[in-house]
Amino acid sequence: MLKELRTVAQRFDQARRLRTLVGECQRLISERGSANSSSIATTLVQRFGKLDDAGRHDFFHVLARDFNPAPKAVLAAARNYAALPSAEHLLALSRTVESPRQELFRRINGAPGGTAAIVAMRRTLLAAMPANPQFAALESDLLHLLSSWFNPGFLQMQRVDWESPARLLELLIEHEAVHPIDGWQDLRRRLASDRRCFAFFHPQLPGEPLIFVEVALVREMPDQIAPLIAKEAATQSPEHFKIATFYSISNCQPGLRGVSLGNFLIKRVAEHLKREFPQLKTFCTLSPVPGFAKWLQKNDGPAVLGARLPAKAARLLEARDIAVRELPAMTDRARHLHAVASPAQDAMRRLCAAYLLYATEPGSGDAVARFHLDNGARLERINTLADSSPNGMKQSFGIMVNYLYDLQQIEENHEKYMRGRVSRSRTVAALI
Amino acid sequence: MLKELRTVAQRFDQARRLRTLVGECQRLISERGSANSSSIATTLVQRFGKLDDAGRHDFFHVLARDFNPAPKAVLAAARNYAALPSAEHLLALSRTVESPRQELFRRINGAPGGTAAIVAMRRTLLAAMPANPQFAALESDLLHLLSSWFNPGFLQMQRVDWESPARLLELLIEHEAVHPIDGWQDLRRRLASDRRCFAFFHPQLPGEPLIFVEVALVREMPDQIAPLIAKEAATQSPEHFKIATFYSISNCQPGLRGVSLGNFLIKRVAEHLKREFPQLKTFCTLSPVPGFAKWLQKNDGPAVLGARLPAKAARLLEARDIAVRELPAMTDRARHLHAVASPAQDAMRRLCAAYLLYATEPGSGDAVARFHLDNGARLERINTLADSSPNGMKQSFGIMVNYLYDLQQIEENHEKYMRGRVSRSRTVAALI
Amino acid sequence: MLKELRTVAQRFDQARRLRTLVGECQRLISERGSANSSSIATTLVQRFGKLDDAGRHDFFHVLARDFNPAPKAVLAAARNYAALPSAEHLLALSRTVESPRQELFRRINGAPGGTAAIVAMRRTLLAAMPANPQFAALESDLLHLLSSWFNPGFLQMQRVDWESPARLLELLIEHEAVHPIDGWQDLRRRLASDRRCFAFFHPQLPGEPLIFVEVALVREMPDQIAPLIAKEAATQSPEHFKIATFYSISNCQPGLRGVSLGNFLIKRVAEHLKREFPQLKTFCTLSPVPGFAKWLQKNDGPAVLGARLPAKAARLLEARDIAVRELPAMTDRARHLHAVASPAQDAMRRLCAAYLLYATEPGSGDAVARFHLDNGARLERINTLADSSPNGMKQSFGIMVNYLYDLQQIEENHEKYMRGRVSRSRTVAALI
Amino acid sequence: MLKELRTVAQRFDQARRLRTLVGECQRLISERGSANSSSIATTLVQRFGKLDDAGRHDFFHVLARDFNPAPKAVLAAARNYAALPSAEHLLALSRTVESPRQELFRRINGAPGGTAAIVAMRRTLLAAMPANPQFAALESDLLHLLSSWFNPGFLQMQRVDWESPARLLELLIEHEAVHPIDGWQDLRRRLASDRRCFAFFHPQLPGEPLIFVEVALVREMPDQIAPLIAKEAATQSPEHFKIATFYSISNCQPGLRGVSLGNFLIKRVAEHLKREFPQLKTFCTLSPVPGFAKWLQKNDGPAVLGARLPAKAARLLEARDIAVRELPAMTDRARHLHAVASPAQDAMRRLCAAYLLYATEPGSGDAVARFHLDNGARLERINTLADSSPNGMKQSFGIMVNYLYDLQQIEENHEKYMRGRVSRSRTVAALI
Repeated sequence: MLKELRTVAQRFDQARRLRTLVGECQRLISERGSANSSSIATTLVQRFGKLDDAGRHDFFHVLARDFNPAPKAVLAAARNYAALPSAEHLLALSRTVESPRQELFRRINGAPGGTAAIVAMRRTLLAAMPANPQFAALESDLLHLLSSWFNPGFLQMQRVDWESPARLLELLIEHEAVHPIDGWQDLRRRLASDRRCFAFFHPQLPGEPLIFVEVALVREMPDQIAPLIAKEAATQSPEHFKIATFYSISNCQPGLRGVSLGNFLIKRVAEHLKREFPQLKTFCTLSPVPGFAKWLQKNDGPAVLGARLPAKAARLLEARDIAVRELPAMTDRARHLHAVASPAQDAMRRLCAAYLLYATEPGSGDAVARFHLDNGARLERINTLADSSPNGMKQSFGIMVNYLYDLQQIEENHEKYMRGRVSRSRTVAALI
Repeated sequence: MLKELRTVAQRFDQARRLRTLVGECQRLISERGSANSSSIATTLVQRFGKLDDAGRHDFFHVLARDFNPAPKAVLAAARNYAALPSAEHLLALSRTVESPRQELFRRINGAPGGTAAIVAMRRTLLAAMPANPQFAALESDLLHLLSSWFNPGFLQMQRVDWESPARLLELLIEHEAVHPIDGWQDLRRRLASDRRCFAFFHPQLPGEPLIFVEVALVREMPDQIAPLIAKEAATQSPEHFKIATFYSISNCQPGLRGVSLGNFLIKRVAEHLKREFPQLKTFCTLSPVPGFAKWLQKNDGPAVLGARLPAKAARLLEARDIAVRELPAMTDRARHLHAVASPAQDAMRRLCAAYLLYATEPGSGDAVARFHLDNGARLERINTLADSSPNGMKQSFGIMVNYLYDLQQIEENHEKYMRGRVSRSRTVAALI
Repeated sequence: MLKELRTVAQRFDQARRLRTLVGECQRLISERGSANSSSIATTLVQRFGKLDDAGRHDFFHVLARDFNPAPKAVLAAARNYAALPSAEHLLALSRTVESPRQELFRRINGAPGGTAAIVAMRRTLLAAMPANPQFAALESDLLHLLSSWFNPGFLQMQRVDWESPARLLELLIEHEAVHPIDGWQDLRRRLASDRRCFAFFHPQLPGEPLIFVEVALVREMPDQIAPLIAKEAATQSPEHFKIATFYSISNCQPGLRGVSLGNFLIKRVAEHLKREFPQLKTFCTLSPVPGFAKWLQKNDGPAVLGARLPAKAARLLEARDIAVRELPAMTDRARHLHAVASPAQDAMRRLCAAYLLYATEPGSGDAVARFHLDNGARLERINTLADSSPNGMKQSFGIMVNYLYDLQQIEENHEKYMRGRVSRSRTVAALI
Repeated sequence: MLKELRTVAQRFDQARRLRTLVGECQRLISERGSANSSSIATTLVQRFGKLDDAGRHDFFHVLARDFNPAPKAVLAAARNYAALPSAEHLLALSRTVESPRQELFRRINGAPGGTAAIVAMRRTLLAAMPANPQFAALESDLLHLLSSWFNPGFLQMQRVDWESPARLLELLIEHEAVHPIDGWQDLRRRLASDRRCFAFFHPQLPGEPLIFVEVALVREMPDQIAPLIAKEAATQSPEHFKIATFYSISNCQPGLRGVSLGNFLIKRVAEHLKREFPQLKTFCTLSPVPGFAKWLQKNDGPAVLGARLPAKAARLLEARDIAVRELPAMTDRARHLHAVASPAQDAMRRLCAAYLLYATEPGSGDAVARFHLDNGARLERINTLADSSPNGMKQSFGIMVNYLYDLQQIEENHEKYMRGRVSRSRTVAALI
């Protein structure tokens, strides 16, 4: 009984807070508020920060419902513009169609800590999206604005190394998502003189990395991850740097999901390294294939693909049978097989090539492949026995892939990919 | 004959350049271009930089004509939204209505030097506007984006003093628009320890001041400009700082006209000074009244105003007659009259109060008054014999005005002003 | 046979190198060399860096033997000065008496990396001193110059915290000599907001800490080390900061031994903290007593002291007997005894007071005590059961001491100490 | 009468102040003071700063009289050392001979502002030297210490350009001693992209240039100063930089007179420019000959030199006669004569060569020549009609000289010069 009363009281309290917050929002975008917007926005940022998740959801509901353009006014403006597409009518149309919440977010962004508040807001919103499709337009407004504010011109690329503040390095350890960093000694090796790490920062989020990429400067295009991340590996001197390999890229800000960052970071790093080491000729990745095992086993991808591409069906099913038969042995002997080109490995390579060339399109298939192909990279080589970590064996039976970034070719490759064709090296083309 | 041929050849050349530039623009916003946008945008920025004014105008014509939303698609989307205002329909509507040139400008902004190029583009465009009303929507797109990118959250306020780079100080001398700076010794006095100068900078335009304000820290609210800008004035020590007077504010970037900067700068400076000198209680301006003489003499403002406000007509016309009669003598004797409260000065004060209180509304009347009143300042005092420079005598017969910034009152004052009522002190109210 | 030949060859090689090096030294201090001294000194620094320890010792022998002032010239100059102590004679005397190697070191110091080379040189020299008393004047010349170049005016104090470069923090972990730092998490706690760490740097050794001190900001004068260095201790907020406790001070440059650094660092930190937290009233240490166990047991210090101070002999020997009898039990039960004031602990306190008050003088007794007493600190409190680490139990049976830095008193305290009297609090005075 | 009383009172006051100051000095170097030296030194620096010139002179008298080594002790130590030149005896000797005031200055140097105070002290002292030869040893102690503290290793070379703080640039305008800077526009040209200015700074005197040099990057070795310092000269682009010409070097700190700065600055700048522009092959000066006119006319240098070098006497006197006869005409027509190689100009060149080659030795002759020759430069070319400014005509009839800095040759050239022989080019050698 008492507990119920307390819950009721809390609900009242929450409702009151929400009303206040929404009132501040309306004041902020009102004429009156414009003379004092920094100060109102500051208060608003603090109030939002104090809401719990339930409170934020309620707030999103209001934003999604009450801060939309007026349908009738929109229709009238569209009719005028359709009748006479003049500058005047276009201006009126644009003003009518823009959601009032866009102006709201712009004013919040002007307050100290405003940008961070909006990024945090979107983080919570994204988590709530699957259960709340009605937030889609609200979410789109935020993405639209954040893409404009975090455009590549405003991003500052900085090298991160052993001279960087410990606080920043700690964030790297926390956010590395591809090949976990096992403490400070591990990190130190990854920042040594034959490695590079670069991050994007934004002037409004000082000291907060948005995304970072780790690069190994090596002699040959690597076919295994272990030597690149071994803590005790000897450091190579610059005269041996021939190839820059991007072996890990990690986002640090979930609230910026969908804002294009990695694409620009890889290209800017490539240009930077080219200037620093003119002898570098090749820029490639050593990347996981996170969707391969699932495609092969759970979804019987080869059979599905075979049905779509009858000419390749027989070879695909044959390779699948070999691979599935040999898998237990491969897994057991992973560490001993490095030099052996067994038929099973050959079958694996073919299947993985089929997966990446024909089953990975904008919107479906392997997520890592999609990222690099969309960036304009080329599928260069498929390496078996490349990652014998438990996760590597589980997601792709140890396979890793090199994608090649040829800055002269990325535009063409990207266009091809948009038309449904994956750029590939001759070696990969020969596999299937 | 030869000359004509040359002109024809130049026109061909110009036309070819324009076609190339427009082609690059289309490529930049295409799918294909998205993989390589920084590089394309960089080229585009360079090409635009090489166009002469005529070429830029031709380019604006294309942007204003060919990069608009499609009227039919807009109408269809507006109908859907009017029928069912769902998130899905709103999303579709927003995408359809946004001009393709907005995406174009966002991508240009991502290139090195992109922000500067867009600011320069708008500067040229603004100069062409009066003769080309069809550029209005294009201009509005640029203003919309620049307002978002130069929002107060992204602006960095920095103090400018004698430790600042000479290159920056030279820009101050060049851009000071209110009380011209007469060389380095004059500037030096304005940066001494009882003066302050603050400027806004943007991370994308390093070293380029956007706007700056000059402040005098004084004992009493000043009623004349000369002591504030005298080169040889003795420097006051901090225990005498009671009042901060903003006596000059100048924009440095014509391409940012209409982007709200001064409003935020004044308030941020006030907060900064309050922290540095807790003894400062009053923040005011000493401002010119640039429209007064024109209103009084050329447009016979008192008569027009009298027609609108019959109750005040008699007194206005009487004051006008005194003022006009005494003007020649006042101008002659400007330097000797300081202590004298002549009937002419009294008449002047009344007329100026009438001008600022009743003839200055959002959109018309005195531009400086509009700026401060719109910011939420209060009309505090009208000072005759305050600026005896030729320009001061010409534009306002030597009158200057103090506006008061009371940070607790600005929101209310601004709202009042929006409703047509100017906040004024009792002293000013008593004048009329 | 072959091996012997090789050794002989190496010796020849070494001898040749040494001759070259000494030749360069003579060239550097010659008239001819003065026009090119930076370049010669640079070569010399590189040559010295390539010598092994044996080669450096040979080099020191030459420096100690061949770069001295000429005895006869010295005597003549001294006679002139004694006959007529004029400025002219004094000038001649000074020039004659200064070792030519001082000018040599000054010119080496002018080369890039010169200061670091001289510090490294002295490090090797100090290690060789015990076996080579003939190096004394050479060593003294180096100390003289280094004391002048590392004078407190040239030292830059910087705070070290979690924003500091990882490379610098790693050096702290390596050099902490009092309470070892157990990895990065331990270090992080020592740099939290209720701790401070300050280091001295020299402009010529950028990024190289010379000495650093660790400070805990606490409510009460601490009587145990464990709470100050516990990794998981809760962080206190500033309103509880009453006392700053210096709990560790470590040198990082063995080549600077004997150059006064710690003295200045402690006082500059105290002044800095006083400005940052005006509520701090007390500055003290929590220090080990590294010589106590040895004095008590190995050297039977109480008996020796008793012979010197007959009035105290009986009480000293009685306390010694209690202490020695109870020691095994104390050591065993160290962790359980915290609250108990046993007679053994009382005896210990008395003995330790006797040790620090009467057996610690400039030049003998406890090294840590000598450092703080010489700095002008006062012996404030003796804490038993303060450090139950193996090392703490071994060197002082767990006793630690608070020294108090009262900046108003240090000059007087130091003078007293120089006259053989240790400043002590009443509590300590009451012990014996 | 009253005035006399006041003077007496002032003298008493001054005497009292001096006693206090001297007392502080004794305290500072005492054992007691060592625990608190920073604090005492700080007071002392303030007290000294408040003394007027007369007070400082009195203070110097005390320092010069009462802070010397003890003659008898010195003699005893010298005897010991002469009897047995052991390390121990040398140590004792060094300690006895060093003036106590050296330790005093070292401790003052450790206080905040101490270095600046000592530099200021020496400035006053140098001005007092001519009338007070008894200050020689005191002055030598200061020079000795300042040379050690301002050794080239501790000096930081920084480029000064239009991005530098206005406060620093103002100091350049003030201290330029060779070719006065006529305001900010003149300065701006001297800092343009085909000019360089570098200054030495010391970490203890932040923002205070010690010395600066101005360099012109040009195509050919210049034979006139006017084009190098013309305000309106067009800026050359880097592909034309073949020769770096040092055309002005100025000291900013009179208190550092005699401390070698210019020598190191020129060489460090040359090395810096070589790295920045590998195409630069020649480093030379365009220098005045300040002593030439005086030597030629007032002192009849040719006759004196002819007496010393009979073989050259006839030609010298002949040249002198031509020169003296033509001088009035030369001066009149300076601006029209540029292309003409008149006999008068030829005679001038010969006389100037004689002056620099045979009448300029360490300690006598032309000061500028001595500086560059002592640095190891070579006399490269003698240019008539090179400086037609009033000062240039007056001191050297418009002649300027190029000295060549060949970093490979400076050591040998310097040594030659020390042996009395000036390095010269064939062209100069051919003149006489």
